[in-house]
Amino acid sequence: MGLVVQKYGGSSVADAEGIKRVAKRIVEAKKNGHQVVVVVSAMGDTTDELIDLAEQVSPMPAGREFDMLLTAGERISMALLAMAIKNLGHEAQSFTGSQAGVITDSVHNKARIIDVTPGRIQDSVDQGNIAIVAGFQGVSQDKKDITTLGRGGSDTTAVALAAALNAEVCEIYTDVDGVFTADPRVVKKAKKIDWISFEDMLELASSGSKVLLHRCVEYARRYNIPIHVRSSFSGLQGTWVSSEPIEQGDKKVEQAIISGVAHDTSEAKVTVVGVPDKPGEAAAIFRTIADAEINIDMVVQNVSAASTGLTDISFTLPKTEGRKAIDALERNKSGIGFDSLRYDDQIGKISLVGAGMKTNPGVTAAFFEALSGASVNIELISTSEIRISVVTRADDVPEAVRAVHTAFGLDSDSDEAVVYGGTGR
Amino acid sequence: MGLVVQKYGGSSVADAEGIKRVAKRIVEAKKNGHQVVVVVSAMGDTTDELIDLAEQVSPMPAGREFDMLLTAGERISMALLAMAIKNLGHEAQSFTGSQAGVITDSVHNKARIIDVTPGRIQDSVDQGNIAIVAGFQGVSQDKKDITTLGRGGSDTTAVALAAALNAEVCEIYTDVDGVFTADPRVVKKAKKIDWISFEDMLELASSGSKVLLHRCVEYARRYNIPIHVRSSFSGLQGTWVSSEPIEQGDKKVEQAIISGVAHDTSEAKVTVVGVPDKPGEAAAIFRTIADAEINIDMVVQNVSAASTGLTDISFTLPKTEGRKAIDALERNKSGIGFDSLRYDDQIGKISLVGAGMKTNPGVTAAFFEALSGASVNIELISTSEIRISVVTRADDVPEAVRAVHTAFGLDSDSDEAVVYGGTGR
Repeated sequence: MGLVVQKYGGSSVADAEGIKRVAKRIVEAKKNGHQVVVVVSAMGDTTDELIDLAEQVSPMPAGREFDMLLTAGERISMALLAMAIKNLGHEAQSFTGSQAGVITDSVHNKARIIDVTPGRIQDSVDQGNIAIVAGFQGVSQDKKDITTLGRGGSDTTAVALAAALNAEVCEIYTDVDGVFTADPRVVKKAKKIDWISFEDMLELASSGSKVLLHRCVEYARRYNIPIHVRSSFSGLQGTWVSSEPIEQGDKKVEQAIISGVAHDTSEAKVTVVGVPDKPGEAAAIFRTIADAEINIDMVVQNVSAASTGLTDISFTLPKTEGRKAIDALERNKSGIGFDSLRYDDQIGKISLVGAGMKTNPGVTAAFFEALSGASVNIELISTSEIRISVVTRADDVPEAVRAVHTAFGLDSDSDEAVVYGGTGR
Repeated sequence: MGLVVQKYGGSSVADAEGIKRVAKRIVEAKKNGHQVVVVVSAMGDTTDELIDLAEQVSPMPAGREFDMLLTAGERISMALLAMAIKNLGHEAQSFTGSQAGVITDSVHNKARIIDVTPGRIQDSVDQGNIAIVAGFQGVSQDKKDITTLGRGGSDTTAVALAAALNAEVCEIYTDVDGVFTADPRVVKKAKKIDWISFEDMLELASSGSKVLLHRCVEYARRYNIPIHVRSSFSGLQGTWVSSEPIEQGDKKVEQAIISGVAHDTSEAKVTVVGVPDKPGEAAAIFRTIADAEINIDMVVQNVSAASTGLTDISFTLPKTEGRKAIDALERNKSGIGFDSLRYDDQIGKISLVGAGMKTNPGVTAAFFEALSGASVNIELISTSEIRISVVTRADDVPEAVRAVHTAFGLDSDSDEAVVYGGTGR
């Protein structure tokens, strides 16, 4: 039996009862013969409460101090968790990100891990302790300042520690049973996925699935650390994310043709109207956006109207960046040369993800047929090798997701594989 | 202008408003040309809330984890304070005890500072920052574990940093105006002391005065760091504690004959009845108490009754240790040889403190005359070179303190020095 890294999110340790329940679960893994390293987030609402305090003293809290403040949250949860484990008769020690050797760059509030030197953690587990590590935090390599990793940072801490400690698996405990074929709040018949490849999980994560963040999956893929996403409230198997299909009992879980349907209503669409259809125009627009440090998602250029020599260019971006993008383009209007800007935040994106697309002709056709059958109008399309995404009206998203989910045989009452006719995608 | 260390207690930073008020005060000192290092405690009730959480998950929290938990409190207050200062347009950086170089032994929950290596703090202030340091915490020399310094630990942090940084003064900001000639809740006419020597302050602290703890004053005396105890709510001068009288305006503050009257009702009295009056008996009793790790205060042995050859030995100790002492003595009853034990927790101690006692005859007589005039019965007496203490009934303490305070001319409506007649003390 090797070393296991377990990560528990804030909802799993929201109060003293939650901490005691999680402690029991951790002790089980130890009793089963594993070395156990636990990464824990701040309790429930702690982080929000600390942010609220910060806003009371300063409208624009400095990054370094904000990180110092927020990291108090995990310090509380990890110490309490270690106490709860010791109270069950097992040895436990808690460690800050810094003590655990989580070395980051100096970008406060969204630092990136650049090295993990887990000597103290390895020593602690070798001595028979359960090691509890604060998620979401590290120490900067150059200035030795406390940093935080940004949203979903505790998952990344867990995967990075699992990689550095050569763990068998990184278990991500959460308040859902795993990764589903669609958001169960939208699609009642969504099914838990038993296994999904790193590649498909990366596409789902970047298409709106919230269970695992892209950065964490990317880290696991690079170091080939299997992730097991599961509920801290049940004993059920969750979703395995790894390079090769897992074996469950005597049957091997097969690669699904389609892994799932993701949706995202957090984006807006900007249309630059009346752009001269000549070389360098798109470059001028997207250089302006890039200089404003805005990440964009999809891009579409309309066919130019021959009569005017003008075209329209549309792109999508997070709604939170909309104001900044419009301002940047307006400031640069004469330099770029365009007539006007249109901003639309009533859009949604639906994405179909599955490596099987590569070898199964007709997936694209079936996807559009399903959308058409649900009378959903398509505004933009973009594809990767294993994903098709469309932009629709935001109101159409739930119906569109359900229609696609059913069409591809993903509903929980549908056991049949769907056969695609037609030629290619 | 040199470097100033300021310490703010939990009541001064109880909420966002308090933090903003303190931030303004700190910026004032910086504007006056000082380098400023600030030591801060946890906000208001934070520590109690964390202790409450610990008790919910474990009846006997482990020391190491308890310290990890409690130190979250200062992390929150110091980060918020740094933010508030930056919001006023001044540069500030917060540092944990570990980052500030506060090195301690490994005795969790009541660690002692064994070294201070404030390189990062010195660098930070040299770069023009106000450095904010977490009080009450350090890092253990051998294991690099987080430790806490116990009650009053933030004051000790401040004095230790002031010594290591060669500060001009260590300002202890609190919710009272300074050290008084008696507890103002008991003696309405108690006066703020302008200056008091380290020696007198040490005696007051060990006799029940709560404004500064003995350990902190002892540290300041050893490194000759002047302490200025003052209110964070007013701009008034407080009490200076130093080796030499200070100058205020054009007049030098004189050494008072009597510094003040302290009282303490936190002790109990144990009487060991019927002890054989022979060598080694007292040693057996106090070895038993010492082996139980109980600190005692006063000791009195009665005159032996010639008829029986038996005597009684009484001593005082913190009420919180009473049970333990009685148990230890009972367990060792046959070894020591005594008839019975009496336990009395309805006692109080009144102490008169002042270096002037050494050279002013009649102080002792005046003290007892004052107590007698208030019809207060004396049960035990103990003295040092600059202190006289008596034990009385707890109920008599307020009246006794007031009578002594008046007799020695300490009342705020009394400007006259009192002349003592009589011969010696």
